[in-house]
Amino acid sequence: MTNPLDPREHEPMGSIVAENRKSLMLFSGRGFPELAEEIGQVLGVAPTPSDSYEFANGEIFVRYRDSVRGSDAFVVQSMTEGVNRWVMETLIMIDALKRGSAKRITVVLPFYPYSRQDKKHRGREPISARLVADLLKTAGANRILTVDLHTAQIQGFFDGPVDHLFAMDILAEHVVKKFAGRPMTVVAPDSGRVRVAERWTDRLGGCPLAFIHKTRDPLKPNQVVANRVVGEVEGRVCLIVDDMIDTGGTITKAADILFDEGAADVIVASTHALLSDPATERLKNSRISELVVTNTLPLPPEKRLDKITVLSIAPLLARAIREVFDDGSVTTLFGGLS
Amino acid sequence: MTNPLDPREHEPMGSIVAENRKSLMLFSGRGFPELAEEIGQVLGVAPTPSDSYEFANGEIFVRYRDSVRGSDAFVVQSMTEGVNRWVMETLIMIDALKRGSAKRITVVLPFYPYSRQDKKHRGREPISARLVADLLKTAGANRILTVDLHTAQIQGFFDGPVDHLFAMDILAEHVVKKFAGRPMTVVAPDSGRVRVAERWTDRLGGCPLAFIHKTRDPLKPNQVVANRVVGEVEGRVCLIVDDMIDTGGTITKAADILFDEGAADVIVASTHALLSDPATERLKNSRISELVVTNTLPLPPEKRLDKITVLSIAPLLARAIREVFDDGSVTTLFGGLS
Amino acid sequence: MTNPLDPREHEPMGSIVAENRKSLMLFSGRGFPELAEEIGQVLGVAPTPSDSYEFANGEIFVRYRDSVRGSDAFVVQSMTEGVNRWVMETLIMIDALKRGSAKRITVVLPFYPYSRQDKKHRGREPISARLVADLLKTAGANRILTVDLHTAQIQGFFDGPVDHLFAMDILAEHVVKKFAGRPMTVVAPDSGRVRVAERWTDRLGGCPLAFIHKTRDPLKPNQVVANRVVGEVEGRVCLIVDDMIDTGGTITKAADILFDEGAADVIVASTHALLSDPATERLKNSRISELVVTNTLPLPPEKRLDKITVLSIAPLLARAIREVFDDGSVTTLFGGLS
Amino acid sequence: MTNPLDPREHEPMGSIVAENRKSLMLFSGRGFPELAEEIGQVLGVAPTPSDSYEFANGEIFVRYRDSVRGSDAFVVQSMTEGVNRWVMETLIMIDALKRGSAKRITVVLPFYPYSRQDKKHRGREPISARLVADLLKTAGANRILTVDLHTAQIQGFFDGPVDHLFAMDILAEHVVKKFAGRPMTVVAPDSGRVRVAERWTDRLGGCPLAFIHKTRDPLKPNQVVANRVVGEVEGRVCLIVDDMIDTGGTITKAADILFDEGAADVIVASTHALLSDPATERLKNSRISELVVTNTLPLPPEKRLDKITVLSIAPLLARAIREVFDDGSVTTLFGGLS
Amino acid sequence: MTNPLDPREHEPMGSIVAENRKSLMLFSGRGFPELAEEIGQVLGVAPTPSDSYEFANGEIFVRYRDSVRGSDAFVVQSMTEGVNRWVMETLIMIDALKRGSAKRITVVLPFYPYSRQDKKHRGREPISARLVADLLKTAGANRILTVDLHTAQIQGFFDGPVDHLFAMDILAEHVVKKFAGRPMTVVAPDSGRVRVAERWTDRLGGCPLAFIHKTRDPLKPNQVVANRVVGEVEGRVCLIVDDMIDTGGTITKAADILFDEGAADVIVASTHALLSDPATERLKNSRISELVVTNTLPLPPEKRLDKITVLSIAPLLARAIREVFDDGSVTTLFGGLS
Amino acid sequence: MTNPLDPREHEPMGSIVAENRKSLMLFSGRGFPELAEEIGQVLGVAPTPSDSYEFANGEIFVRYRDSVRGSDAFVVQSMTEGVNRWVMETLIMIDALKRGSAKRITVVLPFYPYSRQDKKHRGREPISARLVADLLKTAGANRILTVDLHTAQIQGFFDGPVDHLFAMDILAEHVVKKFAGRPMTVVAPDSGRVRVAERWTDRLGGCPLAFIHKTRDPLKPNQVVANRVVGEVEGRVCLIVDDMIDTGGTITKAADILFDEGAADVIVASTHALLSDPATERLKNSRISELVVTNTLPLPPEKRLDKITVLSIAPLLARAIREVFDDGSVTTLFGGLS
Repeated sequence: MTNPLDPREHEPMGSIVAENRKSLMLFSGRGFPELAEEIGQVLGVAPTPSDSYEFANGEIFVRYRDSVRGSDAFVVQSMTEGVNRWVMETLIMIDALKRGSAKRITVVLPFYPYSRQDKKHRGREPISARLVADLLKTAGANRILTVDLHTAQIQGFFDGPVDHLFAMDILAEHVVKKFAGRPMTVVAPDSGRVRVAERWTDRLGGCPLAFIHKTRDPLKPNQVVANRVVGEVEGRVCLIVDDMIDTGGTITKAADILFDEGAADVIVASTHALLSDPATERLKNSRISELVVTNTLPLPPEKRLDKITVLSIAPLLARAIREVFDDGSVTTLFGGLS
Repeated sequence: MTNPLDPREHEPMGSIVAENRKSLMLFSGRGFPELAEEIGQVLGVAPTPSDSYEFANGEIFVRYRDSVRGSDAFVVQSMTEGVNRWVMETLIMIDALKRGSAKRITVVLPFYPYSRQDKKHRGREPISARLVADLLKTAGANRILTVDLHTAQIQGFFDGPVDHLFAMDILAEHVVKKFAGRPMTVVAPDSGRVRVAERWTDRLGGCPLAFIHKTRDPLKPNQVVANRVVGEVEGRVCLIVDDMIDTGGTITKAADILFDEGAADVIVASTHALLSDPATERLKNSRISELVVTNTLPLPPEKRLDKITVLSIAPLLARAIREVFDDGSVTTLFGGLS
Repeated sequence: MTNPLDPREHEPMGSIVAENRKSLMLFSGRGFPELAEEIGQVLGVAPTPSDSYEFANGEIFVRYRDSVRGSDAFVVQSMTEGVNRWVMETLIMIDALKRGSAKRITVVLPFYPYSRQDKKHRGREPISARLVADLLKTAGANRILTVDLHTAQIQGFFDGPVDHLFAMDILAEHVVKKFAGRPMTVVAPDSGRVRVAERWTDRLGGCPLAFIHKTRDPLKPNQVVANRVVGEVEGRVCLIVDDMIDTGGTITKAADILFDEGAADVIVASTHALLSDPATERLKNSRISELVVTNTLPLPPEKRLDKITVLSIAPLLARAIREVFDDGSVTTLFGGLS
Repeated sequence: MTNPLDPREHEPMGSIVAENRKSLMLFSGRGFPELAEEIGQVLGVAPTPSDSYEFANGEIFVRYRDSVRGSDAFVVQSMTEGVNRWVMETLIMIDALKRGSAKRITVVLPFYPYSRQDKKHRGREPISARLVADLLKTAGANRILTVDLHTAQIQGFFDGPVDHLFAMDILAEHVVKKFAGRPMTVVAPDSGRVRVAERWTDRLGGCPLAFIHKTRDPLKPNQVVANRVVGEVEGRVCLIVDDMIDTGGTITKAADILFDEGAADVIVASTHALLSDPATERLKNSRISELVVTNTLPLPPEKRLDKITVLSIAPLLARAIREVFDDGSVTTLFGGLS
Repeated sequence: MTNPLDPREHEPMGSIVAENRKSLMLFSGRGFPELAEEIGQVLGVAPTPSDSYEFANGEIFVRYRDSVRGSDAFVVQSMTEGVNRWVMETLIMIDALKRGSAKRITVVLPFYPYSRQDKKHRGREPISARLVADLLKTAGANRILTVDLHTAQIQGFFDGPVDHLFAMDILAEHVVKKFAGRPMTVVAPDSGRVRVAERWTDRLGGCPLAFIHKTRDPLKPNQVVANRVVGEVEGRVCLIVDDMIDTGGTITKAADILFDEGAADVIVASTHALLSDPATERLKNSRISELVVTNTLPLPPEKRLDKITVLSIAPLLARAIREVFDDGSVTTLFGGLS
Repeated sequence: MTNPLDPREHEPMGSIVAENRKSLMLFSGRGFPELAEEIGQVLGVAPTPSDSYEFANGEIFVRYRDSVRGSDAFVVQSMTEGVNRWVMETLIMIDALKRGSAKRITVVLPFYPYSRQDKKHRGREPISARLVADLLKTAGANRILTVDLHTAQIQGFFDGPVDHLFAMDILAEHVVKKFAGRPMTVVAPDSGRVRVAERWTDRLGGCPLAFIHKTRDPLKPNQVVANRVVGEVEGRVCLIVDDMIDTGGTITKAADILFDEGAADVIVASTHALLSDPATERLKNSRISELVVTNTLPLPPEKRLDKITVLSIAPLLARAIREVFDDGSVTTLFGGLS
């Protein structure tokens, strides 16, 4: 239809019918723009240019340079250090998309923030992981796409579809290639991660499983009295698996105990490399021989120890985004939970 | 586009544009799967296979075997005996569709449950028909498609489109064919159904109308003191019309009074055949010569008396579903209220 | 697909896939149907015929004569005198569209009602402009398209996209053409409109700016003690700009003061011509030489003084509607804020 | 505590504990302020003074002169002619109460507006009675108190408590007193009101019941072909009962037929006296000997025919308000449904 | 104030001020009324009498015999077998309370239904535990009080306060008393329950911890290939701890392996005794010497094996209810999480 | 009632009735705890102790040390630099209160964050001030108490009561005392603040008003071409009034122009002293002789220039909190808008 607004002599129609096309657009927060760039490279679509900056008191301003009207929008934000800034930026980006008439808004959070506060450990605490889900919904998010939630129940905190992807295949492929033929034990660094460790033993063909049992004094909350290894580790390569490494205290302490118990080697696989201070220092000084992580969070050069291997999560995210856009099955292709 | 995820040398685009197709999928609850099958036969689409079963304590589990992403989903559930089980299954099916990214969810309820509790008859009662509408909405239903609501106001309980179909044409065609030429009176079994009976008299070309007037003792709530026929029934074929037959008490008592008043014959037309015990026994023993119903609810073989004629509601539902999918007019084609 | 409902011998499919087309439909309230007609002429689509009337006690009834299922619906309502009637009609029209399965509902309000009550001036007042936004949302509106809000913040009262268009270019073009070459000052009739007046000075190439400073007695709320002109007006053509002219008191008083201060001429530009009594009388008697307005509100013949020029807003609205339907950019084309 | 804001030398407390009193306040819309005054007289509380008026274009402004903070607010509005104005005023009054921190807001609607549009009679219609319930909720109403809804299902349109009172006892007492000893038949003016009429026969000790059966041409919607009386009326005093009298057409036509069928006398009882033109003229010219109504709506002097008896609903409403405030039982005391 | 409704001669007041008392009322579902009775005995308040029954097709009807207006309502429902019936009854009870003007509604669910479906294990599954939380909220529940959720994250599924109580102290006291002095190992029956088992080891003074490690074939979902004990069990009393025992398969299989590994004795502690068939048979035939449970669910006489000890949860629930009513601290008194 | 949980021999009651007391509790964010302390001093209540800290990646944790059950909670947060951190802390504090069963939650925001983004200045922008209101609501805030919003319309962004206080009286009292007798002109630093400046002229007894008129190039958005003073300033003390001072550019430029136009002196009054860099430097170097502000935001010692006077807002906030708690009138006492 060349010029639909021209005055016409003939009678107006009862309706104007047009094809209904859909259009994938990518939006990048400033937490780790290189990841969105990389996803965009795989997808063949550049992140939409925007003007994003802060006022002197920290208030964030965002404006998109292209029209977002009718788009199937994917907002990629990496929740790196100074996480509250990125949460707010994400909310503001969603608001701008909603008010700019985007058709559907999917928030791509490679690392879901506040996932550790997924329940009340004691009374008068918040459940911040639920709060974050509600904030995203309120701002206008229709869907969430995320990787390796701290607990899978967080999916249920969002009132809408959550595509939950797993990095285990990416990490395990590397581990298998490098340590093939050596006797291995998968180790959960605490009692709450045993279920995830068990999934790894299946992936690695049925190897043994161990975990670190912490004894607490019930009269002094959160005070650990002793750590014990439960399971068979002597003479074996111990693979500690955890969803995230923050300050590195848990895994380096676990490594010490494992070596005490006769472990032949200790390596670590973890999806989310927060590596907050003093994690790098601790890792450098530890006898852990390798740490395999993904780039759900940026790892600045000064933290890139030789013993750290970073694998890219971008291809997995790009394929999931494409399937979501195409109404394909994320479950079938990636083993994701959706 | 053959392989959209290949790395590309050229510059990424600002957006990926694709055709936006829509896809009708049918889902069947376990209340009466044969009805969904029959609807699917007419539509030319098979119900999506699913794994549905109960845990030992009655908790229902549902999982679809095919991807439902982006689908225009129609969930067919027949609210037969043990209605709470089917209500919960429907809610769970909707939740799974919502979380699996179905685009639009229409609940097809040939018989709307709890429709009799559509108001507070006295204080401190629930309005369960409204509650059911809210539960469906909360689970994620966008639209309802139903047949012959107990009261038409129930449409207003749902905050969204309700396509309300009528079975009168199907039932009336049968009655007219079989009883053509005999003097007929349409009879409402109680004062609350006179309006519906009046619609039947119009459909049958203006025949007389009667109803059973119940006298209650105002001091003893719900206690009926006497039944009287108001209207002309002597020597006529009396057609009792009602939206549902539950235990059959109302219509068999009505038949007795009508025969007492000189009715030549008594037949019954009703959309929803609950026929809970002892309805079959009562019908068998009554002088009602024929009961015409539809299969909005399943009628097990042991309840299929010779005097019962079951007409299929599936073609009507299939055509409505197709029109909803095609954005056609349900009003025009089927006399439905939407 | 010629007859999709025919019984088939082959196996049913897993889903029925169809093209997803979209269809623009126009709906007109009875506040000022000529405007919707004019918009429809530009768009090439006739407003959908409907049966709209009032019961004796004022209750409004609306029914559309054509199916609205799946439509991209634009409801045009002009909030002219007796504004509550049109607010309710709009809400009822939206409800009928929602329940009739329209896909998306955009309310086109050339003049946003209750925009002057956009905050609590004192305690225990309503914020009716927010209330109106919530009522529209509750009825089922997905988007609002409006012109020259009393304050731009009203956009934020609606939880969804608001396309906010400006009539300044239309009005200014007329003013520039007619008064080219004469020294002009833009005048804000009160302190709250200085920001808007400033935008006009930019549009008119940087001419001076003045405003009427009202002094109030703080002990007697709302009681104005004195009016003073602040800014340079002597010997100049004063262009008073305001978003709306209601009873005309503000602008005629402003004109008097401006002439007192030596203005060469006084003209007025305003988007919304409410012109409630006694505005016409006041204008006729005033020394204001010209009033330029748009037809966001109807101007009955008896109010059409020679000194009033009415410019049509219909082309701007039609182009915005078309862009919204086509997912184009309203920002780029019309200088609108979306 | 005499002066809690004084600076103190001693240590601040962990919390300030105070008695939690509740305070009933009455607010009156301008639809029929005399009714609110009368209710206030019975309750012993004056309606809170407010500034309410309209701008020239009809926009309503409301401001309360006293603080409403923490109050248990009852907003009384009579939905008399020009009903949209009163609906909007009610919504605005509620908004001002909500924003002024009233603790609980009960809307007292002696006549519920738009109650006749309680379902879609045909496709593409609104369900305005549900819409009104949602608008009240959105504005901030917590509860509704109303009298004789057009259909009881409307209770279910509101997501919260609805106290539904009946005027039958008030009306019936008058009828019984005046017509004691004469043979009476209760008559429903159409098929939809037979259920209500049946309740009257119980109240009147089991007298006969009749109704007017309308025959419609199914090909011409809403076109009535013939009216017939079903039931025994000859030589009897016919009491037509209806929830509302609007233009009076239904009841005066019913009266004519009843007299044709030999009725000895025809009287009418109805809760809501809309009496829109030409109801008064019709009543004056009809053979109806008496019309008994309540003052849920104002009856201006020029409509007060000698044959009309107006009974006050104020004592019933006042007692209900008091019980709601006191958390007493409305069910027990007034036969109301809550 | 003796008779507030008397007509008064003096001027009405601006408001009526009254004391604001609160009133605890208890309501019992029919799932396990004895538990509510027992709670009521401890509290000193009888469950409010109600009429609750089913229609022939299973639709539930509930009506309270006393006014619930203004009450602080606690609805106790035990989600025993046929769980959907009790879920629906609970929702209907809440709806009746909401519409009957209860002031606050707390649902007391000693066993939270559908807690095992707290995440999507694979794609296209529901998250029924979240759904249940949303249904309760929609019906009108303000708060939840529950015991030993399957996973603590379920607290976050409800948008409001959840008081989460633990039965561990009750169960542990019994275990300690009976098995004092014998070497004990706490055993988690699968990898997902190790965290809870760890809490038990702290409660029991730091005893060892073991768990059953299941190996699955990653190509055949949910198929367990082998079970292995990880941890020290030889010659020790093994205490298997789990939140619920359904059909008993998990714990009896675990017991077999533990005895195979040299356990001296095997006992089981579990809060929720579903004991669905064939749990009783399995337990009877197993070498488990004792099962300690609470009565969050009813245990019919035929399931009461000698080796089962049932401890009452009623005192804990009663104290929590009383604290909630009194605005006391549940955290402080009971170790509950709120 | 001494021991309500004792087993009793007598019959349980139908309900337990208790007094309903209310309890004010104060909670302080970490943005500027001294302000909350000061408010608490005036009120006589200490802020509730809490454990608040950040994880290494910035995630905030909050836990209250005392029970908050049933409290009337006031959360005081000062939105100082690094505003996103304080926004998130506030939301988390509210969530913890909601889940801990606080009865009512009022957020006290002396400076409302993101208030400058109160509308879309151009397309594809967020309206962050509305977003913040929605986030607060979602987290669980019932009410907002704030001081001098950037625009009063922001009140309408929150769906609930907003108590809007003004600092003008506090600031003006100081100005009047210090500059009594000298000829003064109130100056708005830009066209959008003229309305507020006008209110100051009334407060100062009707002195003249001026403002800085900025000319922009319409082709280059946001680019100011020239600044002109409109109004009489020569030889007068110019009082620039603004709601907030951020980097100080606007007021120091304004001061320069005013001195250019012959101002005798320039002083500034502003409620919110953000004073972000390089505000202090600019102020020091400017000829502005005095800046009067309040402590809605903390002013660190290094920014406390001699020419800055800080007046405390704590007494005003404390009185407002007390009135809100007591259901008194904020309007009457403080000139606040509620």
